[in-house]
Amino acid sequence: MAKKKMHLAQFLVHGPTYHSLAMWRHPETAARNYDWSQPELYQHIAKVCERGKFDMVFFADLNYISDTFRGSLEPALRYATQAPEHDPIPLLSWMAAATTHIGLGATLSVSHHQPFYAARLWATIDHLTRGRAAWNVVTSLNHNQAANYGEERQDSDQRYERAHEFVEVCRKLWQSWDEDAVIMDRENARFADAGKVRRIEHQGKHFKSRGPLNVIRSPQNGPAILQAGTSPKGIDFAAQYSDAIFAIQPRAEDAAAYYTTVKDRMARFNRKPDDCKILFGMQPIIGASEAEALEKQALHNSLVPLDGGLAILSAHLDFDLSRLSPDVDMTQREEPELQRLKTRYRKTSGEPMTLAEVAMRHGQSVGLPQFVGTPAAIVDQMEAFLETAGGDGFMLSPIYCPGAIEEFVDQVVPELQRRRLFRTDYTGTTQRDHLGQN
Amino acid sequence: MAKKKMHLAQFLVHGPTYHSLAMWRHPETAARNYDWSQPELYQHIAKVCERGKFDMVFFADLNYISDTFRGSLEPALRYATQAPEHDPIPLLSWMAAATTHIGLGATLSVSHHQPFYAARLWATIDHLTRGRAAWNVVTSLNHNQAANYGEERQDSDQRYERAHEFVEVCRKLWQSWDEDAVIMDRENARFADAGKVRRIEHQGKHFKSRGPLNVIRSPQNGPAILQAGTSPKGIDFAAQYSDAIFAIQPRAEDAAAYYTTVKDRMARFNRKPDDCKILFGMQPIIGASEAEALEKQALHNSLVPLDGGLAILSAHLDFDLSRLSPDVDMTQREEPELQRLKTRYRKTSGEPMTLAEVAMRHGQSVGLPQFVGTPAAIVDQMEAFLETAGGDGFMLSPIYCPGAIEEFVDQVVPELQRRRLFRTDYTGTTQRDHLGQN
Repeated sequence: MAKKKMHLAQFLVHGPTYHSLAMWRHPETAARNYDWSQPELYQHIAKVCERGKFDMVFFADLNYISDTFRGSLEPALRYATQAPEHDPIPLLSWMAAATTHIGLGATLSVSHHQPFYAARLWATIDHLTRGRAAWNVVTSLNHNQAANYGEERQDSDQRYERAHEFVEVCRKLWQSWDEDAVIMDRENARFADAGKVRRIEHQGKHFKSRGPLNVIRSPQNGPAILQAGTSPKGIDFAAQYSDAIFAIQPRAEDAAAYYTTVKDRMARFNRKPDDCKILFGMQPIIGASEAEALEKQALHNSLVPLDGGLAILSAHLDFDLSRLSPDVDMTQREEPELQRLKTRYRKTSGEPMTLAEVAMRHGQSVGLPQFVGTPAAIVDQMEAFLETAGGDGFMLSPIYCPGAIEEFVDQVVPELQRRRLFRTDYTGTTQRDHLGQN
Repeated sequence: MAKKKMHLAQFLVHGPTYHSLAMWRHPETAARNYDWSQPELYQHIAKVCERGKFDMVFFADLNYISDTFRGSLEPALRYATQAPEHDPIPLLSWMAAATTHIGLGATLSVSHHQPFYAARLWATIDHLTRGRAAWNVVTSLNHNQAANYGEERQDSDQRYERAHEFVEVCRKLWQSWDEDAVIMDRENARFADAGKVRRIEHQGKHFKSRGPLNVIRSPQNGPAILQAGTSPKGIDFAAQYSDAIFAIQPRAEDAAAYYTTVKDRMARFNRKPDDCKILFGMQPIIGASEAEALEKQALHNSLVPLDGGLAILSAHLDFDLSRLSPDVDMTQREEPELQRLKTRYRKTSGEPMTLAEVAMRHGQSVGLPQFVGTPAAIVDQMEAFLETAGGDGFMLSPIYCPGAIEEFVDQVVPELQRRRLFRTDYTGTTQRDHLGQN
């Protein structure tokens, strides 16, 4: 029986750190000429990942610098914890200019926009990339982001209710031009058939929009939709709209439960399990031998400053961890903001973890499991994880850049291909083609 | 005495028509493989204009399809009157990927955004293009655009008051990172100096924003600022903020009055006349002989359908001209919306113009003067226009695409250079360098 092929996405940020706070200062990053703010880096990465036949490159995004830790911007700026982060969307056409097949995804929060703007932007990008666009739909949950936009932070119910309507309006706008509306009859001066373009006349609780969109139907009729939420409302949103989900699950057993939850939820919306692929985050650490890989892991992990880990974890929880001693037992904390840490991070030995240990793990990978070893051993770990989790593939996050991306493509991808776990060439040209959604 | 050098900008739209409604159906457009929706067209144009040493390529933009004429979308769709128009901003990084020097400008309306978003987007584009970004700041005035965003159209006072505060907030955000804030001290895990990054804590009438921006200082510290308004409030805005203005003035005498008004207004803001360059729109029609050029003009102008001209003029006035007979004398109309047509369009003979004649002119060039003749004759006309008007250069709009752009670069630019009216090479690398603003 033919094995199920994995899907692979390369996680990126338009900034100096991704899931690893060590990335910007790692000697292997420093040794290269590619600075994170140099545009050439991103075309290089796109070409490397296309050589590796990845489904997509994908950018996370945030619109703030967090002051949650110690009530100050200083730790975020000092340790580059999601600061700075430049707008990733202008990179998509930039990277499209250097590639022909790989999907190009980015995050755009719906919290501070109108659907007409987002629908138009993404339809345009889908045209420019000839159907390679993917939009990660997020709502903004940090009080610092709301403050940059002069707003109060909304609760999760409000944010998701608005997000549902936002995507519904975008879908209507993408449907406002029929595929054959443009005629281009030069002789008779008839550019488009007005009977095939229509107003949407949307009037909802959060949005009003008349339409039509002033963008003709795009190759994928709007971008592929991505989602990264693990909250019940996020899962609900993804189950209804997404072509793919990115999920962070440190342990395969938890990943399995998550996988089942999402696929069950999809059935409620009459969608088949394969209509939305679930990609689990992982951080590959590759060595020529197991010993070399373990040494690389130790070096990388040691380059994360504890205060940086506390700062990024504080930002993600929107809870100031400077109020606690680094030695506290995190399995015993009662604060509601800290409850999800009890299950997220566990020692294999079963011993409780201290705040310092949790923060270091978070600064090293934000909870992505580290897969460590030779290329063959890493493929073993990937196979084993998916066997337990039931997932559809991985979202990869590097420990240094661009070197760790190149190593995965050059050393791990051939092994995946040899075992028939990954495509040896693209079989289509659009993002949804790669995700098997057409 | 050395002659003053002109500045040249290429006007573009991410759509099938620019100032000429004939463009999409012109045989010279049809003869080429470049369809308006093909991304390759825009990299080609950027390279041609960079070969011509232009200051910039520049995109207009709209967020609606107009139904002003006959209360229907049909004429706009049939005649491609500013419909469709795809988002031009993703094209800037796309064109940057194919060029190294030419400035890259586009329109983003401030009417439906928050300053944090615009400041971040433009700072990012300025980084990606290494200082070649230019932002045309506009407010939205058509009721169709407001309806796509679920809003009522605001009056001009409100729109400009909001626009002033919008740009002020953007400027504060661009100043929120000092130039030397990023240290990248890998040894001591110190990415940025937090003492050189600060909140802006803006609290105004229209906007609140805490900052800082999460984009490091860009090469131009934000993009060059463009403006295209000819209303008193638009002039006031441009005089205060702009590095360059685009202006449509069919007659050199009116252009002279406009030029004086702007430069006088700049003095009130303690700016020197050269701090904002004024570029006048023109439509070049080039022939090997005068006869050939006149023939090209006649063919082009005949390809504009009268109903198309009425539709685009109705959209620009937001007044339905189907209520009037095409034969009415436009110099005698009393409607307030039609008053500016009395001075904009005049016959050289002094005879009054009918609505049909005015609409045809508008469909041919939206009031841009057509400069017709051999390359040498066109340079004569350009020189004469600037001698009367006192302007700083031209914004060029083609009658077919990309052929008319190539002809100007290959035939008119060398003649301008021979007469020392235009640069023979770039002397800087940023948009403001080209505009002489550094």
